[in-house]
Amino acid sequence: MSAWRFCVGTGRMELALRRDYQDSLALVQREIGFRHIRGHGIFADGMGIYRPYRFLKNEHQRHSYTYLDQVVDAYLELGIRPFLEMGFMPSQLASGDQTVFWWRGNVTPPTSYQAWAVLVRGTIAHLVDRYGLDEVRSWPIEVWNEPNLPQFWQNADADAYHRLYRVTADAVKDVDAALQVGGPAISPGSDEWLETFADFVIRHDVPIDFVSRHAYSSGPAQHIPFGTHQTLEPATRLLEQFALPRQQLAGTPLDGLPVHITEFNSSYRPDNPIHDTAFHAAYLAPVVAFGGEFADSYSYWTFSDMFEEEGVSTELFHGGFGLLTHRQIKKPTFHLYAFLARMAPHLLSRGDDHLATNDPAGRITVLAWAPVDHVDLRQSPERHSLRLSLPFSGSQAFLLRSSADEERGNAWAAWREMGRPASPIPAQVETLRECAEPVRTHSRLPVSGGQVEIDIALARHEVTLLEITPVADTTPPWWDDARLLGATS
Amino acid sequence: MSAWRFCVGTGRMELALRRDYQDSLALVQREIGFRHIRGHGIFADGMGIYRPYRFLKNEHQRHSYTYLDQVVDAYLELGIRPFLEMGFMPSQLASGDQTVFWWRGNVTPPTSYQAWAVLVRGTIAHLVDRYGLDEVRSWPIEVWNEPNLPQFWQNADADAYHRLYRVTADAVKDVDAALQVGGPAISPGSDEWLETFADFVIRHDVPIDFVSRHAYSSGPAQHIPFGTHQTLEPATRLLEQFALPRQQLAGTPLDGLPVHITEFNSSYRPDNPIHDTAFHAAYLAPVVAFGGEFADSYSYWTFSDMFEEEGVSTELFHGGFGLLTHRQIKKPTFHLYAFLARMAPHLLSRGDDHLATNDPAGRITVLAWAPVDHVDLRQSPERHSLRLSLPFSGSQAFLLRSSADEERGNAWAAWREMGRPASPIPAQVETLRECAEPVRTHSRLPVSGGQVEIDIALARHEVTLLEITPVADTTPPWWDDARLLGATS
Amino acid sequence: MSAWRFCVGTGRMELALRRDYQDSLALVQREIGFRHIRGHGIFADGMGIYRPYRFLKNEHQRHSYTYLDQVVDAYLELGIRPFLEMGFMPSQLASGDQTVFWWRGNVTPPTSYQAWAVLVRGTIAHLVDRYGLDEVRSWPIEVWNEPNLPQFWQNADADAYHRLYRVTADAVKDVDAALQVGGPAISPGSDEWLETFADFVIRHDVPIDFVSRHAYSSGPAQHIPFGTHQTLEPATRLLEQFALPRQQLAGTPLDGLPVHITEFNSSYRPDNPIHDTAFHAAYLAPVVAFGGEFADSYSYWTFSDMFEEEGVSTELFHGGFGLLTHRQIKKPTFHLYAFLARMAPHLLSRGDDHLATNDPAGRITVLAWAPVDHVDLRQSPERHSLRLSLPFSGSQAFLLRSSADEERGNAWAAWREMGRPASPIPAQVETLRECAEPVRTHSRLPVSGGQVEIDIALARHEVTLLEITPVADTTPPWWDDARLLGATS
Amino acid sequence: MSAWRFCVGTGRMELALRRDYQDSLALVQREIGFRHIRGHGIFADGMGIYRPYRFLKNEHQRHSYTYLDQVVDAYLELGIRPFLEMGFMPSQLASGDQTVFWWRGNVTPPTSYQAWAVLVRGTIAHLVDRYGLDEVRSWPIEVWNEPNLPQFWQNADADAYHRLYRVTADAVKDVDAALQVGGPAISPGSDEWLETFADFVIRHDVPIDFVSRHAYSSGPAQHIPFGTHQTLEPATRLLEQFALPRQQLAGTPLDGLPVHITEFNSSYRPDNPIHDTAFHAAYLAPVVAFGGEFADSYSYWTFSDMFEEEGVSTELFHGGFGLLTHRQIKKPTFHLYAFLARMAPHLLSRGDDHLATNDPAGRITVLAWAPVDHVDLRQSPERHSLRLSLPFSGSQAFLLRSSADEERGNAWAAWREMGRPASPIPAQVETLRECAEPVRTHSRLPVSGGQVEIDIALARHEVTLLEITPVADTTPPWWDDARLLGATS
Repeated sequence: MSAWRFCVGTGRMELALRRDYQDSLALVQREIGFRHIRGHGIFADGMGIYRPYRFLKNEHQRHSYTYLDQVVDAYLELGIRPFLEMGFMPSQLASGDQTVFWWRGNVTPPTSYQAWAVLVRGTIAHLVDRYGLDEVRSWPIEVWNEPNLPQFWQNADADAYHRLYRVTADAVKDVDAALQVGGPAISPGSDEWLETFADFVIRHDVPIDFVSRHAYSSGPAQHIPFGTHQTLEPATRLLEQFALPRQQLAGTPLDGLPVHITEFNSSYRPDNPIHDTAFHAAYLAPVVAFGGEFADSYSYWTFSDMFEEEGVSTELFHGGFGLLTHRQIKKPTFHLYAFLARMAPHLLSRGDDHLATNDPAGRITVLAWAPVDHVDLRQSPERHSLRLSLPFSGSQAFLLRSSADEERGNAWAAWREMGRPASPIPAQVETLRECAEPVRTHSRLPVSGGQVEIDIALARHEVTLLEITPVADTTPPWWDDARLLGATS
Repeated sequence: MSAWRFCVGTGRMELALRRDYQDSLALVQREIGFRHIRGHGIFADGMGIYRPYRFLKNEHQRHSYTYLDQVVDAYLELGIRPFLEMGFMPSQLASGDQTVFWWRGNVTPPTSYQAWAVLVRGTIAHLVDRYGLDEVRSWPIEVWNEPNLPQFWQNADADAYHRLYRVTADAVKDVDAALQVGGPAISPGSDEWLETFADFVIRHDVPIDFVSRHAYSSGPAQHIPFGTHQTLEPATRLLEQFALPRQQLAGTPLDGLPVHITEFNSSYRPDNPIHDTAFHAAYLAPVVAFGGEFADSYSYWTFSDMFEEEGVSTELFHGGFGLLTHRQIKKPTFHLYAFLARMAPHLLSRGDDHLATNDPAGRITVLAWAPVDHVDLRQSPERHSLRLSLPFSGSQAFLLRSSADEERGNAWAAWREMGRPASPIPAQVETLRECAEPVRTHSRLPVSGGQVEIDIALARHEVTLLEITPVADTTPPWWDDARLLGATS
Repeated sequence: MSAWRFCVGTGRMELALRRDYQDSLALVQREIGFRHIRGHGIFADGMGIYRPYRFLKNEHQRHSYTYLDQVVDAYLELGIRPFLEMGFMPSQLASGDQTVFWWRGNVTPPTSYQAWAVLVRGTIAHLVDRYGLDEVRSWPIEVWNEPNLPQFWQNADADAYHRLYRVTADAVKDVDAALQVGGPAISPGSDEWLETFADFVIRHDVPIDFVSRHAYSSGPAQHIPFGTHQTLEPATRLLEQFALPRQQLAGTPLDGLPVHITEFNSSYRPDNPIHDTAFHAAYLAPVVAFGGEFADSYSYWTFSDMFEEEGVSTELFHGGFGLLTHRQIKKPTFHLYAFLARMAPHLLSRGDDHLATNDPAGRITVLAWAPVDHVDLRQSPERHSLRLSLPFSGSQAFLLRSSADEERGNAWAAWREMGRPASPIPAQVETLRECAEPVRTHSRLPVSGGQVEIDIALARHEVTLLEITPVADTTPPWWDDARLLGATS
Repeated sequence: MSAWRFCVGTGRMELALRRDYQDSLALVQREIGFRHIRGHGIFADGMGIYRPYRFLKNEHQRHSYTYLDQVVDAYLELGIRPFLEMGFMPSQLASGDQTVFWWRGNVTPPTSYQAWAVLVRGTIAHLVDRYGLDEVRSWPIEVWNEPNLPQFWQNADADAYHRLYRVTADAVKDVDAALQVGGPAISPGSDEWLETFADFVIRHDVPIDFVSRHAYSSGPAQHIPFGTHQTLEPATRLLEQFALPRQQLAGTPLDGLPVHITEFNSSYRPDNPIHDTAFHAAYLAPVVAFGGEFADSYSYWTFSDMFEEEGVSTELFHGGFGLLTHRQIKKPTFHLYAFLARMAPHLLSRGDDHLATNDPAGRITVLAWAPVDHVDLRQSPERHSLRLSLPFSGSQAFLLRSSADEERGNAWAAWREMGRPASPIPAQVETLRECAEPVRTHSRLPVSGGQVEIDIALARHEVTLLEITPVADTTPPWWDDARLLGATS
């Protein structure tokens, strides 16, 4: 049941050096607690790893881990482990000039596959030296990102990718045979790539420990200045994408390999305001709640708005992927994950609008969400009722309910009412943080016949968490509310 | 307008060495920010200051400031200054065995007034050495506590108190003439004591820089195990007590001296559950809001439940005076103060149910409270309407509203629903902290004709803060909510 | 090899509520890292646990864990676990008035052994509820403290102690049979008590999971104002005391039970300045280094000068037991423990003046100490040479040496030179902290034939740690020190 | 006497977003405390400020302060204020492609001086809005960097710089006439530029509030892989450069304007290992001690090795400018500044090898340094004696001495002995931090005839701080060292 927390996405690795990034990750880890983190750019120039030089008229290859070590140290200190992605190409090792993103990741093959192998082997070996073999064996190592798209891999050349995969996988296994390597990290829209890739690794007996792909549910980009709008497919399409690799590999020698959805989100654009809404949390709730039935992990792209693929953002809320904005304002989708993180381990009940769990101590948790209209969010129902009767061991039940919807736990709504301050002053940031907190209510719930009765209404786009605990009532026999202001007679 | 924050009360000084105490004070200072702190027991045995010894067959008087320095260092580090109270009597300097409180403060006169003078002079001189004269001149120094009660001063002997006052004041002034000394710190019920005291200091030309008294509004204690109930008078009686010293001194040579209400609360009992309720915040709201019209300060007794006059508390919520419980759960009265601390400086409007202020930048704040039935809190109105029209410079207004009432921002209510766990486990403490937070709502308010229109309903026992700020709307011309899910045509 | 870190002593439990105490413990845990902590006073009145009351004309027994939970929460948060000591007697349960210490621990038997059993059982059951059975099973539970001394147990009545032990042990086992209970926690000087106690538990088949005693090496107290001097026996006498229980129990049914020395130090007085000296670290070095050969643990009495058995200390350095003074000034004995905490796990060599260890990665550590004159510390040798040749796997060795002696790493010496400020101002505290740090020197050590050669001199009363690590030299071929200021030709 | 702390240099502004940078700055501020910080790149693309866009077929100019606000917020939180440098050119506003540094700062004039003026005015106005006019008036605003060098300003075109200066200064003054603007920020080697610039601003009555230039004392670069060696001139040449602007402006209308040396160091290369040495601290000591006699400030270039003008560093010690390495290892030059920061305010004595000061409380501080051979550091004297007799009010003196030299307080020496680990593991970082601390010694100093006598020896390249405080001796009459181990008779 923890596939949802196995991994989370991030902007390029260099950003992990930043304080705002680390502050955000610390908050995410404190309230959610992901296991791994995956992003691009370990070999980007900004990380400074690949460092050829001349000495005594010869070329030499030096690797520098000044920043890589700072990043990984920070990750481990924050209780999260890398899910490594080998890419993109250092410009001094690249065969061409093509780059992707504002930050110019080079997406061309290496001039020398041997030098690339030395780079991969050296880097992985360094990590093993520094962090220990047991530790690094737990870090999946993925080869490149979305090679099926020409903007991410020159000409989307499958043969070139297969060569790169093989060289990389071999280099990793040179360090240690138990390290986990995988691919092909494809985007949606080229599902056949996985089959071709599987054929290649099977045919050539290339090492592979897991397969990976991405999942998005948005239509083409409709640009506005500093932003994008897109239509969305139903959220179930994401689950279908999660499910596809297992279906494709069924019956092949790769059947049973772990399947990692190494990126997923509604829109693939870092400037689509839908990411900031309550709708987004309710839309994704069933995906995050049930995705684990279809894949071994699915990594929300990304934990923070500190992300620069389209350049530096110009407004606090700019439609970034983040669960958090810069300066750690929580978005509704943050709450979806934070609610899940508070749930009990054992499945009790599930449905189109809820997931209920409990634990051996008798604590029940229910995650519930309102249904959404994925075509016109203004048409989503204003109110949704949920009634559940769940087995409960206590005689009395205390309910803590936490909610986020169009109004509550919704800093984006408050920010719009404030007039959309692009870079809020500290007092505004403080107000936004207060408005971002889920609303908490508490009450006693009726228990009878070993069942606790839940009858709640959800507001439009609400995501809510119910935490129900047995009450051991220690009210003393002398207590009388009527005497709070004394007995006057 | 800051008489309300001039001072806050505390349990005996030794408790300031504790971490829970300091954690609570840090939170209070962060969200409220009092200027001074006053409590008993600087010369109690637990502080270890008075240390007579024999050497070569002679008696010597040593003073030890090991703990006093730790306490005052902590206070200053937390941004709060002492309001010193000289008392009670070190047991080795006491003329009798009578003590007060579970912690046994000795309330008898000194065996030697000269040794007492040496103790006072030495202690004040030490503080001046360590913290500087300018600093210590800002700390009021009060002589003893409630000498009008026989349990606090042997036989409530006024002459003996006058002697003690004179010796103490002279000792203080020996150190520096500009240090501020005052008294007589009387409890309600002996109002004539102030006049007698004033006669004494006038007649003998004894130094006096301020006068002080206490104010409480509760009736006799009705005991239950580990608790007390009491009737209450109307809250206005507290304001009448605040006002009395100025009336009593009018026309005397002491007319115009600062008046400090060095303790006030509803009940004077540290085990009266009324302190934990939403009623209490609403009951005290007009007192805290308007007390500054009657006295130079009024010190809420006390900031924290870390308080041991009746022994160690046996339950998290036990009716302590604290704005915070142990482990920093906020009570509704905490919110009353925290709301005041966020208010603007200039008076705009006041009434039986509100206080409105603004600042030069156009920010308006309104503190509002529901009326209470001080005889039977179950009879307080369920709903109270407030309509205000206030001058406002902006063209659009953003409202952040923070509320606490019987349900919301009310950890005591949640704790009762949880079954009153005496010493909650960490998960329960976390739940209580969440339930203790005021609920925040946000919206736009209508503005027309240079007025912002407020029309709100308050729930039973609600205290609420409205923060209204001008909106500079930067919504771009291309923004269209209808396009959030893309244009489908 | 970790018997030395199994446990450390502390002042009475109530002190654990204090910030200075917790700050000190945090530092101790960060730089040393003890496993358990043991002190007196869990049932002292200041902890507020035993709370009888009347209701409807009957007597009831309530237990309150407000403070106990705060203490244990703090311990676990700081990474240390309780070593519980059941005692002394709540005054409301005591059969007499006899107390021990400034803080008045009642040392008389209970009026009702049944009520005592209820108290013990309730407290242990509460701890199990709150912290879990697995956790509490790892906490040794000791019955009372030094019952062989009349000041700690009325009349030093062995039969009464045996009864108390039996009732307590049974109450503990009522909660869970796998909880560990033991005694008799005797002081030196009544060694026969252990045998009598063993006879009793064997004869009556009373539960016992470990035996315990104390060890001190000082003579009678010679008082001065606010202090004490004492002669010392050779440090080896401490090891003899450690060894005695195993000898006494050999061949009995208790043979093989864990032996915990639940207190040890040179002097048993909390006001003997010897505790503050460099001599003390050198004197105890062989005891701490080799004590694990004789007992399963030996708990240094105590980690902090926050300790009030003789009242509140009047000077920063007052001869307290602490590894740290108030405000966290490190004493030389702190360094002894901090050095040990940095040592490698495997024994390499030992001698009268050193202990050498290494680890699988080839790191060597040597703890060395200068010999002392235990009768006249001014006669201890001024200089002591140590030569060692140790097997070393690297080709080059880097040495980091850390030292404390009469001058270096010695805040007490600096404090005396400063004129003994009783309660130092912050600038003086900062100076003392700087003077308290061990001096670090670094160098390369000669390696030949697979041996690293150590040849060092120790100053008077020096304790030193050598940390020797293999060097992987990556100096590049182009490096030339002579070119640091450029080539001028 | 605080010209030395008025300002410190930094790598480009974007780096201020990083945690390691902020951790370093926090340490620098805690132990040194600079007033201002100056670096390049406020308008570099990485800061994301200049954001032109098209909407409805028109071009618009948007400014985004997302990162600028994060940087300045962090600075102010750390107690340091910006010394703004207007430059370089946003690539979308640049007239050419020429860039400087690995991070590609564009050094060409704007395509539109009007758009540049809008950018400057908008940015300064934003800062005034956010931080307040009083605050921003205290921030000097410098126009561009080293325009006299063709690598920093296309063709080193003086006329173009004058135009840029005028447009920028006018834009700044448009916001507020009391803002401080200045230039021309020239490098050494084009001293005449200042005169030409002065002529220009005088002739055209262009606003100017201060003049600025840089100072370096190194010869041409001698490259090695990943490093540079250079010869150095005597340190006095730096003071001569500091002095030059006042000389050049004497008698002109600009006579008396503040002179800021907005960069200085020995070598201008960020990869010259001389920066890491003890020699460097001793070499610069007289410059930092006495520079205030010649200029209003001189800004050490730079506080941290987090600096990327030549790319990402490949080794912990790589000859960076920093007072601190990555991960906050202190270099000897850090100690020079930290020692100065602890000095008293009043000059007592100065000389070729020392500066002595005192304060009204009688505290004396002496900064002393060993003479250096600036041609061959191996020829610097091995030992240097300093004798001083200084007026002292106390009867006894306590000396705390802090030292750094070739061995002590010298992490670079330790790092070399460790084999130059490029990216040290945490245990190595900890060792380096320990080796980096200055060695502290303490003693009593002789006082006679109102003079304290100092007679010390300095080791090669030692920089040392003596802190001498009066002793108030409170040793009690009963104290006797001979009784520490008791009286045996």
